[in-house]
Amino acid sequence: MSGFWFGGDYNPEQWDPEVWKEDVALMRQAGVNLATVGVFSWSSLEPAPGRYEFGWLDQVMDLLHEGGVQVDLATPTASPPPWFSRLHPDALPVTADGVRLTHGSRDTYCACAPAYREAASGIARVLAERYADHPALAMWHVHNEYGTTCYCDHAAAAFRTWLHARYGDLDRLNAAWTTAFWSQGYSDWQDIQPPRRTQYLVNPTQALDFRRFWSDELLAAYKEQKAILRELTPDMPITTNFVFGGWVPVNHSRWAAEVDLVAIDHYPGQTGIGAEEQTAFGADLARSWAGGRSWLLMEQAAGTLNDGHRLHTKEPGRMARQSLSHVARGSRGAMFFQWRASRGGAELFHSAMVPHAGRDTRMFREISELGALLPKLAELDGSTVEAEVALLWDAESWWAMQSTQLPSGELDYLTTVQAAHRQFWRAGVTVDFADPEADLTAYKLVVVPSLYLVSDAAAESIARYVEGGGQLLVGYFSGIADTAARVRLGGYPGAFAELLGVRVEEFHPLPADGFIQLSSGGRGRLWSEHLRATNAEVIDRYVGGVLDGRPAITRRAVGTGSAWYVSTELDDAASAALVSRVLGAADVARSDLPGVEVVRRHAGGTTWTILLNHSATEAVVPADGMELITGEQVRGSLLLQAGAQAVVRSD
Amino acid sequence: MSGFWFGGDYNPEQWDPEVWKEDVALMRQAGVNLATVGVFSWSSLEPAPGRYEFGWLDQVMDLLHEGGVQVDLATPTASPPPWFSRLHPDALPVTADGVRLTHGSRDTYCACAPAYREAASGIARVLAERYADHPALAMWHVHNEYGTTCYCDHAAAAFRTWLHARYGDLDRLNAAWTTAFWSQGYSDWQDIQPPRRTQYLVNPTQALDFRRFWSDELLAAYKEQKAILRELTPDMPITTNFVFGGWVPVNHSRWAAEVDLVAIDHYPGQTGIGAEEQTAFGADLARSWAGGRSWLLMEQAAGTLNDGHRLHTKEPGRMARQSLSHVARGSRGAMFFQWRASRGGAELFHSAMVPHAGRDTRMFREISELGALLPKLAELDGSTVEAEVALLWDAESWWAMQSTQLPSGELDYLTTVQAAHRQFWRAGVTVDFADPEADLTAYKLVVVPSLYLVSDAAAESIARYVEGGGQLLVGYFSGIADTAARVRLGGYPGAFAELLGVRVEEFHPLPADGFIQLSSGGRGRLWSEHLRATNAEVIDRYVGGVLDGRPAITRRAVGTGSAWYVSTELDDAASAALVSRVLGAADVARSDLPGVEVVRRHAGGTTWTILLNHSATEAVVPADGMELITGEQVRGSLLLQAGAQAVVRSD
Amino acid sequence: MSGFWFGGDYNPEQWDPEVWKEDVALMRQAGVNLATVGVFSWSSLEPAPGRYEFGWLDQVMDLLHEGGVQVDLATPTASPPPWFSRLHPDALPVTADGVRLTHGSRDTYCACAPAYREAASGIARVLAERYADHPALAMWHVHNEYGTTCYCDHAAAAFRTWLHARYGDLDRLNAAWTTAFWSQGYSDWQDIQPPRRTQYLVNPTQALDFRRFWSDELLAAYKEQKAILRELTPDMPITTNFVFGGWVPVNHSRWAAEVDLVAIDHYPGQTGIGAEEQTAFGADLARSWAGGRSWLLMEQAAGTLNDGHRLHTKEPGRMARQSLSHVARGSRGAMFFQWRASRGGAELFHSAMVPHAGRDTRMFREISELGALLPKLAELDGSTVEAEVALLWDAESWWAMQSTQLPSGELDYLTTVQAAHRQFWRAGVTVDFADPEADLTAYKLVVVPSLYLVSDAAAESIARYVEGGGQLLVGYFSGIADTAARVRLGGYPGAFAELLGVRVEEFHPLPADGFIQLSSGGRGRLWSEHLRATNAEVIDRYVGGVLDGRPAITRRAVGTGSAWYVSTELDDAASAALVSRVLGAADVARSDLPGVEVVRRHAGGTTWTILLNHSATEAVVPADGMELITGEQVRGSLLLQAGAQAVVRSD
Repeated sequence: MSGFWFGGDYNPEQWDPEVWKEDVALMRQAGVNLATVGVFSWSSLEPAPGRYEFGWLDQVMDLLHEGGVQVDLATPTASPPPWFSRLHPDALPVTADGVRLTHGSRDTYCACAPAYREAASGIARVLAERYADHPALAMWHVHNEYGTTCYCDHAAAAFRTWLHARYGDLDRLNAAWTTAFWSQGYSDWQDIQPPRRTQYLVNPTQALDFRRFWSDELLAAYKEQKAILRELTPDMPITTNFVFGGWVPVNHSRWAAEVDLVAIDHYPGQTGIGAEEQTAFGADLARSWAGGRSWLLMEQAAGTLNDGHRLHTKEPGRMARQSLSHVARGSRGAMFFQWRASRGGAELFHSAMVPHAGRDTRMFREISELGALLPKLAELDGSTVEAEVALLWDAESWWAMQSTQLPSGELDYLTTVQAAHRQFWRAGVTVDFADPEADLTAYKLVVVPSLYLVSDAAAESIARYVEGGGQLLVGYFSGIADTAARVRLGGYPGAFAELLGVRVEEFHPLPADGFIQLSSGGRGRLWSEHLRATNAEVIDRYVGGVLDGRPAITRRAVGTGSAWYVSTELDDAASAALVSRVLGAADVARSDLPGVEVVRRHAGGTTWTILLNHSATEAVVPADGMELITGEQVRGSLLLQAGAQAVVRSD
Repeated sequence: MSGFWFGGDYNPEQWDPEVWKEDVALMRQAGVNLATVGVFSWSSLEPAPGRYEFGWLDQVMDLLHEGGVQVDLATPTASPPPWFSRLHPDALPVTADGVRLTHGSRDTYCACAPAYREAASGIARVLAERYADHPALAMWHVHNEYGTTCYCDHAAAAFRTWLHARYGDLDRLNAAWTTAFWSQGYSDWQDIQPPRRTQYLVNPTQALDFRRFWSDELLAAYKEQKAILRELTPDMPITTNFVFGGWVPVNHSRWAAEVDLVAIDHYPGQTGIGAEEQTAFGADLARSWAGGRSWLLMEQAAGTLNDGHRLHTKEPGRMARQSLSHVARGSRGAMFFQWRASRGGAELFHSAMVPHAGRDTRMFREISELGALLPKLAELDGSTVEAEVALLWDAESWWAMQSTQLPSGELDYLTTVQAAHRQFWRAGVTVDFADPEADLTAYKLVVVPSLYLVSDAAAESIARYVEGGGQLLVGYFSGIADTAARVRLGGYPGAFAELLGVRVEEFHPLPADGFIQLSSGGRGRLWSEHLRATNAEVIDRYVGGVLDGRPAITRRAVGTGSAWYVSTELDDAASAALVSRVLGAADVARSDLPGVEVVRRHAGGTTWTILLNHSATEAVVPADGMELITGEQVRGSLLLQAGAQAVVRSD
Repeated sequence: MSGFWFGGDYNPEQWDPEVWKEDVALMRQAGVNLATVGVFSWSSLEPAPGRYEFGWLDQVMDLLHEGGVQVDLATPTASPPPWFSRLHPDALPVTADGVRLTHGSRDTYCACAPAYREAASGIARVLAERYADHPALAMWHVHNEYGTTCYCDHAAAAFRTWLHARYGDLDRLNAAWTTAFWSQGYSDWQDIQPPRRTQYLVNPTQALDFRRFWSDELLAAYKEQKAILRELTPDMPITTNFVFGGWVPVNHSRWAAEVDLVAIDHYPGQTGIGAEEQTAFGADLARSWAGGRSWLLMEQAAGTLNDGHRLHTKEPGRMARQSLSHVARGSRGAMFFQWRASRGGAELFHSAMVPHAGRDTRMFREISELGALLPKLAELDGSTVEAEVALLWDAESWWAMQSTQLPSGELDYLTTVQAAHRQFWRAGVTVDFADPEADLTAYKLVVVPSLYLVSDAAAESIARYVEGGGQLLVGYFSGIADTAARVRLGGYPGAFAELLGVRVEEFHPLPADGFIQLSSGGRGRLWSEHLRATNAEVIDRYVGGVLDGRPAITRRAVGTGSAWYVSTELDDAASAALVSRVLGAADVARSDLPGVEVVRRHAGGTTWTILLNHSATEAVVPADGMELITGEQVRGSLLLQAGAQAVVRSD
């Protein structure tokens, strides 16, 4: 492929064949060049056990090929047909309460059930055999949004096998799980169960390991299908669409190595931080999972943002800017769920490229405009984003915080990391995300917004980074526990106490609407700490109350490096000020253009600057070079209309 | 019967026989002439399998008869005895989660269980055989508040049978349910299940059909008992008490044809719109279900309004006014649950005609006053209410909205229809409710406050009404889907787009506390739309935001008729203004008397005007004729004290 | 023992043996003299069926003994090991929904399961045999916080047995449960089930009896273990730790007779009334359960108060003052959960005497200071608290209110009683709690803040108290029901109507944020009543609304006694004023020292006055005698610093 992919999920089985022809014509008109087909087609492909109906898909593949649209062909394993549930009731998933779910939605399978795994491999093989050589085929899309878990006996058996592999013997498991607490010591592997509903609080390490187990088990299921597809189509890229949001079903960072192209489904919402900030956040994560290489925005909503209670309709231009933000941050295109809005079914009001009202709509016009714009940016392909700042990201810490009775129920991993990311987004600083154990030496600044659980290896790597001259900014409630979710003793923040030169005796969570004053004039919310600066400079102090005069923010100089610590959730202004100061100390370039998102891409000596004016007023932006969308030369500055975008190439 | 029925549920099995005598004496004193007996008496009538004890009921029937109280005798099938659950555990109901419920409450049966149906028919027959000729018997009251549903295997089998009858073959079912979405295609009837708990969103049409199925299944259960009672007592009226409120368990409009007298249980609450407005709303519904004939308020609470968290005690006089509002709107009387407050059991604080404190209470005095008043209005019997305005009412649309992921979680069928009804109530305009497919030609104005799901036949009937010169007012989110809950394509509001001369491209739901300004000065809440007036006059426009300048309210003239459309939830003042304008266009008479409810009844050339002053101030009301309560002649105007009522006959 | 116990739960099985040595050294340093060992040690003591490992416990017992720390040795029956659940899956508890719980937490047993009871007796016997003669053993601690209930078939069978014993025949049960309501009449004992999930509202008396049954059943389980321990160690005190808070699992007042020393776990929270007021409340309850004898605070949290969402860290000095408040009110010491904060497990952030940060912490220093202070108060041991005021306390009324659909969902037994207790706490008046059927003649004032359910015997006893010259203050919604939770007819407050000289026709619950004005200027919330003073003086009246002019507070003089009634929830000032007036009438001494808690203990002619300054300002307190903490003589007055405590002995 050259240029960007543009298209979306296409579900022709919902429509009459006459519609298919209109679809292809409209796709051509809109500039669509890739369609994800077959994601939920199992019951259409195999309507009864062993009875296959491929005619309709043959026809659709041919039609798309004739229309110049390539196909990202999905294995349909995310939704077995109703007959499968009848034949294999033991493969229906079971909740922690012991409720065996029924079909009638999607994802009604337990990925640990042998019958399901066999059937999934079977349909994947049949599909691959049939379409291995179809000229439309451009990519395999295994399954859909892996993340369905289960507490059934199949899952229990698989969990035990996984635990056996992890711990080797029960003594190590008992130690890791602290089973001496509440008389949970295991003397027989068969006594171990999933964290099903129990009398009172669950064992947090058992719960954490169950999350780890499921991530690995689902990855194994993915790899089974991948192996079949690779065998039959050795050169075809294979991926699966990661689902991201408030839900973190698997450890995407570990999964990324197993896909030929990282692909994410991304649905920023109308809650929490702004949708544009969420867009940048998710896109930076995807790029980081992909190791800096390009990736693909596989699904987004064309026209709406969900706030959990209602849909918010995106304003004119907003869909395009959000798409371009993804592209700027490394996506190889902009894909949508879905091409044509469904008439019925559970998601009938999900927005689509072709809405219920049809082609004569603002939505389809904006889609077509974006389809026309993307080819003008084709030269961006191959360039990369370079970041000087890394934020550490860790699914296991997130899981551990969800599994544990925390000192404050308001501690939320995602919220904390997003709040940190947003400060850099606002400062115009593009950041990478990095694994805690990754080599950080390339970065000028490393931020640890939240890292409850940290391995010894990660703690050492981070310390080495600072000793090597790096700037490190650590947030509260980090370094607390080891990988078994056991508290590191001797004073918080455990793994980082020595590095930061601080010792926390006790936490002081703040009330829901409370705050604590800082001597700098800023305020902290949610959290504070009884902190001693054992070997650090005090940057800011608490004022008033029982923590009066105690350190709130510290900095320990380590050679040319330094390790900063923030013991509370700073308010917006104080957080921005601290980030500004730390950016300065790290000598990181920034581009403060309020309301204008700026991302730079590089290849050879060429730089492309993507400018997205999310604000309601025009902006004058310093720029030099060729603006790719208009084809005009820019000298010194560029006038960017409210809501407009520009891409400037300079050498 | 002549005159009005007055009385309530009477549960003598809770009391010693000495109390029965006091009951009858107090009933006489209070003017009670009808008692509903036996509603939950199964375990008293058949305490062990096949062992019947009718002695107590014989005695009670005789006592009531001697006391001049007629009996509305209930079949006790709404609560099988505990022994029934032991003998037939498969007849206990099962939740969508698979939890099999236990007895110990009421309604612990699955109406699809053969054992239950057989037992219900059996006890009904035994009861009818015994009391067929009892002189106290005035009416049969089958069961109680039909509406209990179940997800068990009996229900699953019956659901399949119903679906088979509805769809004939699986292709039609698959098309109706859009099973192509999420791989739900059925190739075998046995694979179909009730919408039990599943992994994620349920299929909305499956859920809707399950509601339809249960309405029909319960109706079949009712008809089985009715057939037995008719066989044994051919001339006795048979009914069942419809339960109405936020819960709409069955399609009352379809059930109404199967009862000899529409009867409703009506419990206006202390939430949402005022209890008086709820009273009028429910009473108008009941009259409309009854086809304009008289009906019966079978249950109401004597003394309290529930807000879901606590009881609100009705102010002096309020019970009487609410009773009279029901009567004015067609009820053949005012009945209560229950005669005497229970000492124990689950509803021991449910208010009653004889409260815990006994006869020497405000409550019993007000009951007695109402009992004395009603006979004075006996001449109203046989007169009818005539309405010039119809509001469309559709249980299936309500069900469909409850089964579907809507664009806004705040869309609520009942709230929307009640808000519309209230505007007419306030304007002093009595309205009927009508089925969407009904003949509407008799009305000057037809209002469609909300009609998500609409059949082709209904859409055509409504269009014909306008073409015939009618005034039609349609609210947003109407005409969206067909009867399979599939969206009508090509632009909202689907079925009504051409008739209204508008085309909606996309919805713009508003935030919980947001609003949108209109050029008329009014405001919209909850909802707005990207609307084009393709063939309509613009009555009001949106101001500001992305919809700035777009139409908000439109009117399409169709000969002498016209079709109005409102694309947002208008605030109170704007809604009143629009209703006023439309009433004017329709030439509908109104009686604006703030705080005074006015209902007119007609028979021959005589008109009775019922006046209920719900306000805290006296009102001077234009009136001429004989006031029935005082027996005084009214000339020109009537002074109505705060809280007072009057009924004026004029010829 | 002489002096006070000081220590906490000690769970050495969570730590390496090296830590045990440090533990004993730190205990000595902190003044610890009692450790509760083995509470959740079953899986450490019997890691596989029949395989016992006592070596570690032998070692710990010896180490503690050598260190001068006595042992409160627990039977570990509150958490059977995982293998037990495998061998006896029928002994896992089942919820009302029918979900069988899994192990992996604690308390995963049904105390009605024969296998569990047998195993519990077995491990208790083995433990007692081994340590009967160990010199460290000072007390037996049976189980932990009895209160786990279950709805399984074992529980159903035991419930039936209990009901048979209570009622004798089904007629009496049917009458008590009012089963005539909703057709619940039982004709066969086997038809009776626990109040499992059912279709709609449960039978309130069935639910109440299930609570009574479980309290008795758990008591039987306790007594089984007690018998074994008594047999093997006839002279050793035996107790179990009562759990108290918003949860009232058993009838502690009835259990108290079965323990050699009343012991409570007490976790005042950071919600509702202040933690100091909760402390006094719980301590007064414990002393009253102990019949005025000394009792033991077995568990408290060292450093934090929970508000349900987050931990609030106790300010410096607060832990000591709360401990001393318990001691002042009769506790034989101050014990904590737990000694050393766990590294892992479900409660890893539960505060401890030795926190995660270790010994060099404010927490451990304050613990050590308290450990040094307590011996100075040793002479208090043996003295008693004398109260002139009694508040009636009744677990059954609480249960009944939780089992019943009340007229207002805001009626809450604990809140009401705590609000009453607080008024006396603020006035510096120490109160006892008393059973409703207790002999009350020793008190000058008896308060009935809330007593929904009242036996005839209690009603008579209370009436006799007034007739004997006592002052009685009764709150609304008291005397309503009999012990079968059936309403007492004829006018509320049923059992007390005649005594109080009032008759309530109907309740008028108030809206959530509403209030009602009183003629005195005060306000009522939550509740009001349509009250007649049939034979009482009116003390205050309602103003406005439908109750305008009606009595709100009344007083009936009965010889030299009087019976006061309050028909609403008074606001704070009005409540304080009424309490003040009633205290005056009862001639009860008070000590109004705002912010300073005052408790007096007596022995022989000596009085000890414990003074706790909870306020942020110093206070001058009238006092004469020897201050035990400083050892200084006090003459006339004592200056008490903010946050400080003092204990003054005077003769």
